[in-house]
Amino acid sequence: MTVQESTTGADPKGGRPVLPSRGRQRPLGMGETTLTGGFWATLQQTNATATLEHCEQWMERLGWLANFDRVADGTTGPDRAGWSFADSEVYKLIEALAWEHGRSGDQVYDDAVRRLTARIARAQDADGYLNTCFGHAGRQPRYSDLEFGHELYCTGHLLQAAVARLRTTGPDELVAVARRAADHVCDTFGPDGLQGICGHPEIEVGLAELGRALGESRYVEQARLFLDRRGHGTLKDIPLGRAYFQDDVPIREADAWRGHAVRALYLSAAAVDVAVEQDDQELLAAIERQWANAVARRTHLTGGMGSRHQDEGFGEDWELPPDRAYCETCAGVASVMVSWRLYLATGDVRYADLVERTFFNTIATSPRSDGRAFFYANPLHQRVPGETSDDDAVSPRAEGGSRAAWFDVSCCPTNVARTLATWHTYLATAGRHELTLLQYAGARIEAELGDGRSVSLEVETDYPQDGLVTVRVLRAPEGPVTLRLRVPAWARGAELDEGGRRRPVPPGPAVVDRELEPGEEIRLHLPMAPRFTWPDHRIDALRGCVAVERGPLVYCAESVDLPVGTELDDLTVDTRAAPRYHEGRVTVRASTNHRNDPEPAWPYGTPADLGGTGSTASMDLALVPYHRWAERGPTGMRVWLPVARPS
Amino acid sequence: MTVQESTTGADPKGGRPVLPSRGRQRPLGMGETTLTGGFWATLQQTNATATLEHCEQWMERLGWLANFDRVADGTTGPDRAGWSFADSEVYKLIEALAWEHGRSGDQVYDDAVRRLTARIARAQDADGYLNTCFGHAGRQPRYSDLEFGHELYCTGHLLQAAVARLRTTGPDELVAVARRAADHVCDTFGPDGLQGICGHPEIEVGLAELGRALGESRYVEQARLFLDRRGHGTLKDIPLGRAYFQDDVPIREADAWRGHAVRALYLSAAAVDVAVEQDDQELLAAIERQWANAVARRTHLTGGMGSRHQDEGFGEDWELPPDRAYCETCAGVASVMVSWRLYLATGDVRYADLVERTFFNTIATSPRSDGRAFFYANPLHQRVPGETSDDDAVSPRAEGGSRAAWFDVSCCPTNVARTLATWHTYLATAGRHELTLLQYAGARIEAELGDGRSVSLEVETDYPQDGLVTVRVLRAPEGPVTLRLRVPAWARGAELDEGGRRRPVPPGPAVVDRELEPGEEIRLHLPMAPRFTWPDHRIDALRGCVAVERGPLVYCAESVDLPVGTELDDLTVDTRAAPRYHEGRVTVRASTNHRNDPEPAWPYGTPADLGGTGSTASMDLALVPYHRWAERGPTGMRVWLPVARPS
Repeated sequence: MTVQESTTGADPKGGRPVLPSRGRQRPLGMGETTLTGGFWATLQQTNATATLEHCEQWMERLGWLANFDRVADGTTGPDRAGWSFADSEVYKLIEALAWEHGRSGDQVYDDAVRRLTARIARAQDADGYLNTCFGHAGRQPRYSDLEFGHELYCTGHLLQAAVARLRTTGPDELVAVARRAADHVCDTFGPDGLQGICGHPEIEVGLAELGRALGESRYVEQARLFLDRRGHGTLKDIPLGRAYFQDDVPIREADAWRGHAVRALYLSAAAVDVAVEQDDQELLAAIERQWANAVARRTHLTGGMGSRHQDEGFGEDWELPPDRAYCETCAGVASVMVSWRLYLATGDVRYADLVERTFFNTIATSPRSDGRAFFYANPLHQRVPGETSDDDAVSPRAEGGSRAAWFDVSCCPTNVARTLATWHTYLATAGRHELTLLQYAGARIEAELGDGRSVSLEVETDYPQDGLVTVRVLRAPEGPVTLRLRVPAWARGAELDEGGRRRPVPPGPAVVDRELEPGEEIRLHLPMAPRFTWPDHRIDALRGCVAVERGPLVYCAESVDLPVGTELDDLTVDTRAAPRYHEGRVTVRASTNHRNDPEPAWPYGTPADLGGTGSTASMDLALVPYHRWAERGPTGMRVWLPVARPS
Repeated sequence: MTVQESTTGADPKGGRPVLPSRGRQRPLGMGETTLTGGFWATLQQTNATATLEHCEQWMERLGWLANFDRVADGTTGPDRAGWSFADSEVYKLIEALAWEHGRSGDQVYDDAVRRLTARIARAQDADGYLNTCFGHAGRQPRYSDLEFGHELYCTGHLLQAAVARLRTTGPDELVAVARRAADHVCDTFGPDGLQGICGHPEIEVGLAELGRALGESRYVEQARLFLDRRGHGTLKDIPLGRAYFQDDVPIREADAWRGHAVRALYLSAAAVDVAVEQDDQELLAAIERQWANAVARRTHLTGGMGSRHQDEGFGEDWELPPDRAYCETCAGVASVMVSWRLYLATGDVRYADLVERTFFNTIATSPRSDGRAFFYANPLHQRVPGETSDDDAVSPRAEGGSRAAWFDVSCCPTNVARTLATWHTYLATAGRHELTLLQYAGARIEAELGDGRSVSLEVETDYPQDGLVTVRVLRAPEGPVTLRLRVPAWARGAELDEGGRRRPVPPGPAVVDRELEPGEEIRLHLPMAPRFTWPDHRIDALRGCVAVERGPLVYCAESVDLPVGTELDDLTVDTRAAPRYHEGRVTVRASTNHRNDPEPAWPYGTPADLGGTGSTASMDLALVPYHRWAERGPTGMRVWLPVARPS
């Protein structure tokens, strides 16, 4: 069974980033879901009131916006502001503003979209080309550096921004600009055109979605062309190898995500879009396989992807160092993009499990609670506390440790912004006679099922603080409805309570399949006792360690919580005592065994050489949710805690 | 007590790379030591007969030599061959050739030095400036990119080459070229000149040694100026931070080696030279402190330094991942340079312990046994076998896994070449009434002591295969002589046998202090049973693992030695059974526990989730010396082996 919905022009369901024309599940639009409070509503509100303005101010200050004015005014030159991909940040901000306008209806965001659109529209060439880095006076020629020029990458983000505008507001100047840009790309790189691809995938996912949103199959076909042109050494070799931009192996043949993580994931998201639109089972199966292998062997506990700083890349199977984990925030966004598309195509809630893990432990980790500073990399272990960030400075570095107001390469803030603005569209999906709840948050849902009937629900929960999710039926159609509630993979011992009839529900979809009664309540009880989590023995960097999780949240120890005179390096955890949750805090039984080093010594030898004499301190150590680490200032941090050997 | 020796012009002792004018120990020259056979004699011979020619051929083929001709002929332009530092490879080759000529007296190496000198001399400007990358038609101006231009770095290598020539042959055209270049540097960057430093230290160590070799204290003082000018933000900030080129903290104040490893170590070598020449105890103490901290917390078991690929840098304390260990071959060479200078200054044999470890396990690891391919990085764990290298191609990558004939950045082959050509000068040193044997190899030593008396010894040994070192006195002076034999730190249970009187000698110098008899034999018995070595608990990446060492050699497991159907990832070692040495092979009792994965799964959970069912194979697993890994073709490899938990 597939659910089909065709929407070109403004989205009658209020807008959503991804709208496949077929697939197992239909995503709900912004008109169908509203957050009423809780964890994500708070983040969404901070995003709307602080982050969006913050991003625009920085891009104005740094001249990234003025780059467009300079092209329009014919004053370009060698001194252009920012990296080649700075245009894309402007487009991602416009996308975020458009979604936020769609979500809240607040005119201020509409005004901002119009204001920014007017500036970029002026910079578009007559043939549709739009880029401030290439193709104008004093700049390199168009498409002269496909490896690293990011021209098509920037265009891809423009198209995604136009999709947001089109679906929330309807056709406007931004959509017209994007259509001209997309036509230019198809004319230039079509079957008989330049046989090139962009070093950074993104045009593909932009073309596919704009094609769907406008009913232009030519755009989708151009995305397919780009996908299949890749993997044949189309780009030049580079010191990092062609795997860096996934030009080493054709996407249909590859088994593993490799190279630059964001590049690999944007590419895969597009591949799912194309596979679904063109009913290309081979291509869909390739991404399902790559997803499964990466999740099993190349993903950190937080859902973070990318183990190498050198190339912001995946690394090899089992290469998952907590200290050097890169786990770029943008790779978290991109991973959600892929998993969400795979879920819509297949209906398999495993994909939503990874979406949840990544939302809570990678994407939510990035923004500071005031929405005005961000993590770029998200390591799982920080030995040396980061520096206190200067909110008035651009950070030249991606390293973890402290959130920065802005980065020299500032892809993450705008990516977080556009994702948070749409968070509620990942909450639930509709099938033919069915509604699936995927994420849990206080919300109202008024969804149309595939059969045309509609259901109205209210969800009440303090998740992830509390494990009780109450689904109240506000309005129900005649006849049976299949209500599916995702029981996360971590939730062993969950129970579903229908009017007092309580039954265990294993991980996967918990199904209620009957006529619903207005006013009735269905309660999902998710087990929220904190738990120890062990790593596979093949992950060398985690040997002898455990992590602590509670519900969907990964926890960590911060050195600021250690007693004076004890060191994070000397910490061990006693796994014979279960972690506890009490008065809102997770604690573990821990010790620090501090060896007195009179002078530095060779750190390899017999146990007797290394044991030394020392002092031991035992304690109940409080852990904090990983997504809030470093909120109290610079600190050492560990997600993975060494296990004390039984004495 | 300090030993003083002043030699300007040709070295009456036959040449040596480092000749401090004071210090606790005097290095022996090439006229005082000869290798008679064994491990290092073989490497030295291969270096002479294969590597030197190999390097010259590659640099001719790639145009790095022709760069000099083009400057001389006025045909430079934007299309110059190689990186900005390609000149330095030519200089390192000349240095290696000069030493090899000094060692062997073979005219072919002398001819090569003259041939190459003639080409570089033609490229020198009238004012002494000599660089093929900057300062000529179609190129950037002189000293316009001190951060990354490597101009002074190249000059430093020119000066070191001239030292080799001067000490082995006497003043010649190369020495004249170097003197003009050094004068130009002093004139340009002196106290009243440009207040700049080079992004890559090396000029300092070149100036200091040429100053010593020519009796030009001005050069030493210029080296000091460069040293003290560093650490104050003299260079621009870069994304990697100023720590990358040690411009973040003044060298006298720093506690840790940090940033790019080769840069940090070349700088420290120069600091010891300057400290010794100018009797600067503060500066000497700073490098002793930095050495001690790095050896305790930032050094791999192999002596390798550098834990990050991103910046070829140290990383933080305890950041010692075996898989991503960078351990650049050149950092091994540079580490020996520092340790050797510290030993000469202090007489502390701990420094020679690290020299031995680094020689056997980092520097000897680099060249393939035919001397025509090299490791650049030296990781301690290889998951995916490297590719079979193409001996006719330039490798764009530094990654470990397979030795490459040449690299795009090809600093390591010439660095290995110049080091191997002088290996015998690290064998022994003289004090006032004393001779110290530091490294063990079949050799003849005819050394002059500080008091003017001379001693002649023959050393017989199959070290490191065998632990017996026989020192035969060939000729002895009247009166007592202090003979010191370094007992390595790893050698617990060593014994010294003087004419049948056998006594235990602990690590450190074993001392014989009496009149020596011609013909008598002193035997050092070093314990050669293979041993398990554990890591400090603070090295997270090695938790739960042991390594195996035998004598000075680190061993490793290679996947090519595993039974078919077993995986290196599944290997565990039973540490209750001691490692064995039998018929030339080291073996450990090992198992592989292969879990059957029907399909990829989330790799974090309870032990029950992760245990699965599987098959166990037990075996006596043969290990190979780390320095010979990948000699039988591409293979997986592990130095650190997970310990089986007692069942």
